[in-house]
Amino acid sequence: MRHLGAEITALVPGECEIQVPFREELTQQHGYFHAGVTAAIADSASGYAAYGLMPANSTVLTVEYKINLVAPAAGELLIARARVLRSGKTLKICAADVFVVKEGNETLCATTLSTIMAMQDRSDIAAGS
Amino acid sequence: MRHLGAEITALVPGECEIQVPFREELTQQHGYFHAGVTAAIADSASGYAAYGLMPANSTVLTVEYKINLVAPAAGELLIARARVLRSGKTLKICAADVFVVKEGNETLCATTLSTIMAMQDRSDIAAGS
Amino acid sequence: MRHLGAEITALVPGECEIQVPFREELTQQHGYFHAGVTAAIADSASGYAAYGLMPANSTVLTVEYKINLVAPAAGELLIARARVLRSGKTLKICAADVFVVKEGNETLCATTLSTIMAMQDRSDIAAGS
Amino acid sequence: MRHLGAEITALVPGECEIQVPFREELTQQHGYFHAGVTAAIADSASGYAAYGLMPANSTVLTVEYKINLVAPAAGELLIARARVLRSGKTLKICAADVFVVKEGNETLCATTLSTIMAMQDRSDIAAGS
Repeated sequence: MRHLGAEITALVPGECEIQVPFREELTQQHGYFHAGVTAAIADSASGYAAYGLMPANSTVLTVEYKINLVAPAAGELLIARARVLRSGKTLKICAADVFVVKEGNETLCATTLSTIMAMQDRSDIAAGS
Repeated sequence: MRHLGAEITALVPGECEIQVPFREELTQQHGYFHAGVTAAIADSASGYAAYGLMPANSTVLTVEYKINLVAPAAGELLIARARVLRSGKTLKICAADVFVVKEGNETLCATTLSTIMAMQDRSDIAAGS
Repeated sequence: MRHLGAEITALVPGECEIQVPFREELTQQHGYFHAGVTAAIADSASGYAAYGLMPANSTVLTVEYKINLVAPAAGELLIARARVLRSGKTLKICAADVFVVKEGNETLCATTLSTIMAMQDRSDIAAGS
Repeated sequence: MRHLGAEITALVPGECEIQVPFREELTQQHGYFHAGVTAAIADSASGYAAYGLMPANSTVLTVEYKINLVAPAAGELLIARARVLRSGKTLKICAADVFVVKEGNETLCATTLSTIMAMQDRSDIAAGS
């Protein structure tokens, strides 16, 4: 996230917003934000949203996500807004929308649905989910 | 892709392999390859696999993908292998597996299913898919 | 849909609601609505929502969907509400939520993201999407 | 499954095959197998494949799946073949392919990726996953 210049701009249990300002290195061939950046901040925002509903000492693991890229991410700022749809003991189901801001106007450029797992300790990760 | 140090290591119409050697900058907090890298090379390999089955002058657009992260990407090399499952005129459906290589052994760390669109010219992108 | 006893209860271009009252034949072993019913009405509602934004003589084709089943569908009525998130010329991206109603209270039991294709004539289907 | 006339035709731990012969009631408007049937047998085959790798007294819960419908399911028989890609303690990640058989020839008509949860007892279901 640091590498991308991403910043958490809002965070409450079950919700998170992450922003990334435009930088040349984050673009693909047409000068838009790269889809990899879009997916990465949607995933991170979902993870933080879920983490806020987990017990202390939990580790967050993204089990899977699905992303629809619905419009080119052409603009000066990318904003991911994630929320937990369902908070189970082991699994949190999250949705995130990613908007691109161009001259002050937000456009939806991607949307994700993801499954996040709360791991109680690191040894579980080694053993597999 | 260049940014990640990724390299196409095999390419025939309908199939593509991409490799990324380990680098400190590509890791998350536990020293594994970051999930964003895994997703990005699976997506790129799928796009190249699909592109080989499209008419000249096509532009490749990832409509959506779903990824399951099935094991930590702990190792010295990441390999994405993509293949086109179904090649329609407008849409190509692709599957990709990502393996991590540790001391010579390959382990499946992620698998994706994606929908790739062939765009005939750039103006279509502006108009929306 | 008829087979399931499903009914369209709201329909405007880009949005659709479908309801299915409880019936013994639609349940799984615990007496909840079967996940297949949940998925089927979410898919149908998405298709109708998309169809309302297509030119006349279009055929609707579900390219793919992803569903998260977030709670048991225990109740007397199932309601799917779908909306088009992005309406491209060829593809419509839709989200649908499915709620189960028990003693008057709605609970989210599933959510989907789907890609719907507008086909201009039947011959396209035979030739592949 | 009984309702659909579906039958388990192969079952070993981690793998399952389910078949459904053609019946008028399982079709959509063009006389093909309905997508709901395709999705249902892919989901069931995945669940049984996963179940074979779980401890006794486990309950199988489909957390989520993604399906790509890649060709019309036109034929006399539908076959779903599922396998577990990754068997964690809590979660099993499964892939399933669905083939339609027409005059003896198999064609891939759908493919799924799913996340299946092993629940140790029923009370967990009530409490949420």
